[in-house]
Amino acid sequence: MTAAADGSPEAPSSNGADALIDTLAASGLRAIFANPGTSEMHLVAALDRRPEMSPVLCLHETVTSGAADGYARMAERPAATLLHLGPGLGNAWANLHNARRGASPVLNLVGDHAEDHLRYDAPLTSDLPALAGSVSHYVKRTRSAQTAAADAALAYAEAARAPGQVATLILPADAAWNAAAGPASPQPVAPPAAVDGACVDRVAAAMRAAKAAGGSVGILLRGQGLRGAPLRDAAKIAAATGARLFCDTFAPRLERGVGAPAVERLPYFAEQITPVLEELTLLVLVQSSPPVSFFAYPGKPSWCLPEGCETAYLAHPHEDAAQALADLATALGASGPAPLAEAGALGGSPTGPLTADAIGAALAQNTPEGAIIVDEAATTGLGVYPSLAAAPRHDHLNLTGGAIGWGLPAALGASIAAPDRKVICLHGDGGAMYSVQALWSMAREQADVLTIIMANRAYAILQIELSRVQAVNPGPKAHSTLDLTRPALDFTALARGMGVEASRAETAEQFVDQLRSALARRGPRDGPDDAVFQQDASV
Amino acid sequence: MTAAADGSPEAPSSNGADALIDTLAASGLRAIFANPGTSEMHLVAALDRRPEMSPVLCLHETVTSGAADGYARMAERPAATLLHLGPGLGNAWANLHNARRGASPVLNLVGDHAEDHLRYDAPLTSDLPALAGSVSHYVKRTRSAQTAAADAALAYAEAARAPGQVATLILPADAAWNAAAGPASPQPVAPPAAVDGACVDRVAAAMRAAKAAGGSVGILLRGQGLRGAPLRDAAKIAAATGARLFCDTFAPRLERGVGAPAVERLPYFAEQITPVLEELTLLVLVQSSPPVSFFAYPGKPSWCLPEGCETAYLAHPHEDAAQALADLATALGASGPAPLAEAGALGGSPTGPLTADAIGAALAQNTPEGAIIVDEAATTGLGVYPSLAAAPRHDHLNLTGGAIGWGLPAALGASIAAPDRKVICLHGDGGAMYSVQALWSMAREQADVLTIIMANRAYAILQIELSRVQAVNPGPKAHSTLDLTRPALDFTALARGMGVEASRAETAEQFVDQLRSALARRGPRDGPDDAVFQQDASV
Repeated sequence: MTAAADGSPEAPSSNGADALIDTLAASGLRAIFANPGTSEMHLVAALDRRPEMSPVLCLHETVTSGAADGYARMAERPAATLLHLGPGLGNAWANLHNARRGASPVLNLVGDHAEDHLRYDAPLTSDLPALAGSVSHYVKRTRSAQTAAADAALAYAEAARAPGQVATLILPADAAWNAAAGPASPQPVAPPAAVDGACVDRVAAAMRAAKAAGGSVGILLRGQGLRGAPLRDAAKIAAATGARLFCDTFAPRLERGVGAPAVERLPYFAEQITPVLEELTLLVLVQSSPPVSFFAYPGKPSWCLPEGCETAYLAHPHEDAAQALADLATALGASGPAPLAEAGALGGSPTGPLTADAIGAALAQNTPEGAIIVDEAATTGLGVYPSLAAAPRHDHLNLTGGAIGWGLPAALGASIAAPDRKVICLHGDGGAMYSVQALWSMAREQADVLTIIMANRAYAILQIELSRVQAVNPGPKAHSTLDLTRPALDFTALARGMGVEASRAETAEQFVDQLRSALARRGPRDGPDDAVFQQDASV
Repeated sequence: MTAAADGSPEAPSSNGADALIDTLAASGLRAIFANPGTSEMHLVAALDRRPEMSPVLCLHETVTSGAADGYARMAERPAATLLHLGPGLGNAWANLHNARRGASPVLNLVGDHAEDHLRYDAPLTSDLPALAGSVSHYVKRTRSAQTAAADAALAYAEAARAPGQVATLILPADAAWNAAAGPASPQPVAPPAAVDGACVDRVAAAMRAAKAAGGSVGILLRGQGLRGAPLRDAAKIAAATGARLFCDTFAPRLERGVGAPAVERLPYFAEQITPVLEELTLLVLVQSSPPVSFFAYPGKPSWCLPEGCETAYLAHPHEDAAQALADLATALGASGPAPLAEAGALGGSPTGPLTADAIGAALAQNTPEGAIIVDEAATTGLGVYPSLAAAPRHDHLNLTGGAIGWGLPAALGASIAAPDRKVICLHGDGGAMYSVQALWSMAREQADVLTIIMANRAYAILQIELSRVQAVNPGPKAHSTLDLTRPALDFTALARGMGVEASRAETAEQFVDQLRSALARRGPRDGPDDAVFQQDASV
């Protein structure tokens, strides 16, 4: 008998599944978002070996991968999905794409047919390695029960590799059920690569030269640079040098609100980005890339930096941005305190029509300190965002890969990672319908999530895009593919169908009342929802 | 000005999207199941050019691909999906897997970034060709607006290639928006390959030899062989030779009920298949493969034919099974009439507990002639199926690839293909939650679908499998991943939230009443649902 981490007696690893689960527990894995099938039954049975490991059942795999992403962003360590062959991984693909784009560490454990069964081309057989390769940084197919544990240790370390990777381990059913010698040793996780002093000096020199030439410097932050000490070092540098701090429209995670340094968020459309950056002569990149438009448009450039603006990489995504920013602050003599946003006058409670401004003001006034805001509110969210600067300090999580249906699952995962923090999920109605099943897991896990569905009854961003792309004469069929009014979705009924309380607000006053009531309690709540805006005020 | 197929005036094709849509309309495409994004806006705008083409908006891409599959099975021609880059195709993957396994002709039109935008690695960039390749028989990435139409014509023909393929055409946004010369000519669709006389004679000789040796012959039918004249030819052969007719557990489409020839359905579990086949000395394969177990299990064989049983291929999936069966009937002198199932005594209306037998009896008594039964009822469905033999003649569609969440979308698609036929969708609760969004499209399209959710509050098949795979000591965590009771799903609320009427039955009497009421009307209805069975009779 060996002893589990908490000292309880533990059965020896008897098969590949047991050895794998023991190894992952020792590696540090705690959260598994699962929708298993027959080929994963031994892995499922092995979960009860580890009291520290919590499987969360999700009703569709897009919830598993979105939740793993949300968990990983908050816990800053890998979360796992447990998936059933090709279809399970296919269903998880879109939110794995978001995780990949957000540099979130996610480990996919994908069951497959037993090695000898593959040759029979049974109905669930597919080209699983090709599918996995299309969305993963790392893919391995375990060959036997004897290698499953060691492969799992390596896959976990690959997921954790800076800045965070999607690693997929394919597990034939017989590698789970056959006898194994026991767990493998956890693999060391490679630390972020150091940024050498010469690089820091080059960037410092470029910043000084730009300033001396009367130019304007920006620092585009991502990853580590957007929270904690690195963000404060960046703010010191900005204060000392006059450089402006920027983040992407869709930064994976940003510390924000009263008490955090202020960062300018780049707008969504290229023609809005260009004027923001037009004075820049140098852009310093911290785990980020030069800004480009989200989509291309006829006759418009994708590149958003002004002609002649230089770029200087302080830290690539896999490098140690924290150390690099500290070193840059030193090199530039930026020793003063980081300027932090102060509490301002919040104004009165909003009244009247339920606009994005009203929602933003209500959230700024009522959001508790330390909240996690998970934002997939699309068109409406861009209007709510500025108001949230006046809220108490919080984390703001964004949809990084453009695959909608991420917000609800990510809110679930964030809440599992940080059970003592209030999660507020801001979501568009179109995107919410992509993964509405996440509400059920929130109810089951009693996750402390308040979901606010911004129901404008349309894929509103596409109604904007349809005109922007200069499509000729769209007619009723074209418009019908962007419209969600026939029939109207009733999110309160959908939420109740999955065990989540819900209410509906149509005015700012109703919204404030329901928001306060919801925030005063723990537990998942889908509402105040059906916030109605602008053109759709007749609902 | 050219003229549309219905004689209405039509604008000339001005860009790649217009030329592509005109070409696909001329090729025969009618149904497009869509969830477009920015990169597909020109394709969307082009849809209004063609009155004969109907885009159906779906709230998640798993609905688009499942509906395309269901449509293609009933219409016997390709349906299209319209998808948004990698995430759209990823979301569609699982039901494309089912379509591929069912040999359904499906054409995916996947928008991508403009060619020049790809280099910037914008957030929605992914390895789209690799993803497409993992589930498609055919993949092409159009390079320009000048080739879009010709590529579409070829992709459509590839989808239609016998027995039906998944073809994916990736369309960079600039290939849609740039100027094009006009539509391309439709490509000829390759007919099924002929089965030559020598092959038919070989099979006939093998069947005679088996019979002469006192053996037993089976014919395993799939594809064309399971409906219409080929099925009747198979029944004549069976009557003349004593051969038994079989189909897979999960035949894509089977003509069934009173007035159709009877076919034995192979059971699901290998240990159930083996005794059914144990007397066979020869199995003739018609667009089918030798039966194997769905999953592998420790120490059990995957192959289900008895030792020494010969196999003989009459027609491979891409071959002309209709002609081959007609020729085989001739070669064997099977000239008598095909024996057809006759109407029997249906018994009284079921009463008491709502068992699978009761549901089956109620359906047999009340299903209208010509119904389409879409069956993803899993454990419960296997119990309902035998009773349906006594129903009037109908088509029975099955989940072919094991990727759950197919039934509701397929029912939508089948109804679009056959709007004058009643569609009855039998669905398990676990699978229904995978693509419950399909209910909204049913409501929007006023599809004549009655959905019956068999709510046993569990992934019941997995509860069976957990014991079958001999997993050691599954504990509470293991069992929790197979359980749907916390919280209980309320499908009537979910349906109403998407604009579909719903009701709930807990007894056979309630079920019969609600079934009759629902069948007496057109239109989508989700109910009688929450049928409660067996171990879960306390709900």
